Amino acid sequence: MRKLNFSSGPAILPEEVLRRAQDAIWDLDGSGIGILEHSHRGKEFGRVLDRTEAAVREVGGIGDDFAVLFVTSGATQHFAMVPQNFLGVGETADYCHTGVWSGKAIEEARRVGAVHVACTTEPAFSTVPTTFAWSPSPRYVHYTSNETIYGTEWPAPPPAPAPLVCDASSDIFSRPLVLANHALIYAGAQKNLGPSGISLVIADKKFLETGSKELSPLAQYRVYAAERSLHNTPNTFGIWMIGEVCRWILANGGLAAMGERNSRKAKLLYDCLDASTAWRPHAQPGSRSNMNITWRGLSPAADDAFIAAAEARGLSGLRGHRSVGGMRASIYNAFPEEGVQQLVQLLREHDA
Amino acid sequence: MRKLNFSSGPAILPEEVLRRAQDAIWDLDGSGIGILEHSHRGKEFGRVLDRTEAAVREVGGIGDDFAVLFVTSGATQHFAMVPQNFLGVGETADYCHTGVWSGKAIEEARRVGAVHVACTTEPAFSTVPTTFAWSPSPRYVHYTSNETIYGTEWPAPPPAPAPLVCDASSDIFSRPLVLANHALIYAGAQKNLGPSGISLVIADKKFLETGSKELSPLAQYRVYAAERSLHNTPNTFGIWMIGEVCRWILANGGLAAMGERNSRKAKLLYDCLDASTAWRPHAQPGSRSNMNITWRGLSPAADDAFIAAAEARGLSGLRGHRSVGGMRASIYNAFPEEGVQQLVQLLREHDA
Repeated sequence: MRKLNFSSGPAILPEEVLRRAQDAIWDLDGSGIGILEHSHRGKEFGRVLDRTEAAVREVGGIGDDFAVLFVTSGATQHFAMVPQNFLGVGETADYCHTGVWSGKAIEEARRVGAVHVACTTEPAFSTVPTTFAWSPSPRYVHYTSNETIYGTEWPAPPPAPAPLVCDASSDIFSRPLVLANHALIYAGAQKNLGPSGISLVIADKKFLETGSKELSPLAQYRVYAAERSLHNTPNTFGIWMIGEVCRWILANGGLAAMGERNSRKAKLLYDCLDASTAWRPHAQPGSRSNMNITWRGLSPAADDAFIAAAEARGLSGLRGHRSVGGMRASIYNAFPEEGVQQLVQLLREHDA
Repeated sequence: MRKLNFSSGPAILPEEVLRRAQDAIWDLDGSGIGILEHSHRGKEFGRVLDRTEAAVREVGGIGDDFAVLFVTSGATQHFAMVPQNFLGVGETADYCHTGVWSGKAIEEARRVGAVHVACTTEPAFSTVPTTFAWSPSPRYVHYTSNETIYGTEWPAPPPAPAPLVCDASSDIFSRPLVLANHALIYAGAQKNLGPSGISLVIADKKFLETGSKELSPLAQYRVYAAERSLHNTPNTFGIWMIGEVCRWILANGGLAAMGERNSRKAKLLYDCLDASTAWRPHAQPGSRSNMNITWRGLSPAADDAFIAAAEARGLSGLRGHRSVGGMRASIYNAFPEEGVQQLVQLLREHDA
């Protein structure tokens, strides 16, 4: 019996994809060799890479102006790679500061060059910014589309005066993808895309060409584009999984359907929290995440009691991050609506 | 029906481990959540990390003076990370040049600092070096214990005047591990350890402390040691797999037994090649790899005919790397002795 997994990442994956993974680990597509064992230079894995890239492009509506790259890393690696590639001497990058993850991205960028924080909602981080003070001529503007820990999400990208770079780790492919004004989008796979240990990058090919040529090949986005993510052995299983998850998204109506379903799931929870006397949602209306819903009870003891009751019913992973406390329900694409209803039921039972 | 997989990497894995992976993907240890979906901060994955590290230490006979690290990357990332961490201004690192992979490591180190090539067997790369010209005071000495492409292997580490750094990607845990005189050993997992997208590092803790503190956290080996490879989300499935492969090694007699079996397997092939008139082994006695056996026929047409005949019998992945041509049989730990006998049989049939 599988539990209801509210983990923020690595996170729940579609059960149909897990069943296919069980088969592919033994024998990929009837090739007589498992996906973990196939050479990344062989024709069978070549087909896997082709169909994963095609599925990513179809899901995201991504045209030929953009490269689709697979990097063996989490999103944290990109916190450093983005400024190393694109923030030169005498240039300034603008960052939107909305929580723990943007804070880490800012810290890494400052190691490389000049950073201007153009907006912030610290210390509460319960909304996304609405006022901006851009630097005169930013090289790029970085934002975190969804704050996994605080539970906020940009309803639309910031109105930036320069190409956008987006950390979309926790909401990529959870709603229609906005590519306009974006130079580069990166996402660790372990929420909506697949397993941990691989990240997806969607990047404007012309923007990639403006990056540093001095870095080692694996640190240059350009090299991933030129060598189709095969400069060295990639995370082959991760690429296979991302392809299967994207095919699952397509079979379930694509991003428009994902977005509607995710809004409906999140609304069930927010409505319940807003109507309660026992629970206090952290993120404010207009900035609320559809992926990570955060709230607290009236006391840490109430939080503990709720989490224990949830665990007893097979609702796992609801404890909030230590930065925010309380509870967090991560309800990514693969999380079933029926599971959200079970959580709502339990919240109501604990509403004094 | 699974084929006999001679791929050089990603490569054949123990079938018992693949069967366990099929189960764990659905439900890890009866937790009700699959290994791909468990939080890296949860107690279940904590147990996975504990037992993988314990199994690696037991297999390798690795004591507390050494750290065991899991890095989300292939070995190529370490070509850059090693000099970035340890090759300072005014210092020189010595490199042993034995083929394609050491060549790439040298290229990356030159991007960072002063490199002295202390020995080389170019252009044939059919032996490992026996004469050395060390620089006056090398910071470290880098060597590639097994050359996957040319098919050579150091029978013992080079007699270096400085701490050894070893790329052991293609022969780690294929024979008893020599830690003496080693500062750091790294290995991409996708040959003898598990899937691609993760690497194992075994490093002297005191040596790690001598590394640069200026790099971003994910580029510092020290950070992996201090945060137990959990600075960011690691490749959790890869860590699980490495643990299971190590447990399989232990259940099959450990590294002494692996070494004996691998020598026996390789000897079957080398004896057949040496006794033949149709085949010419590339690597010379005394330098021959037990992992990657390379040979050519009397003509490219003979090579093609042999590879086609092998494929028809379910012997897959025997075409040599383009640098060497001919054939290559990669027979890692998980490759069955009976499969080597099938290859020998076919070689004899094609021996004019």
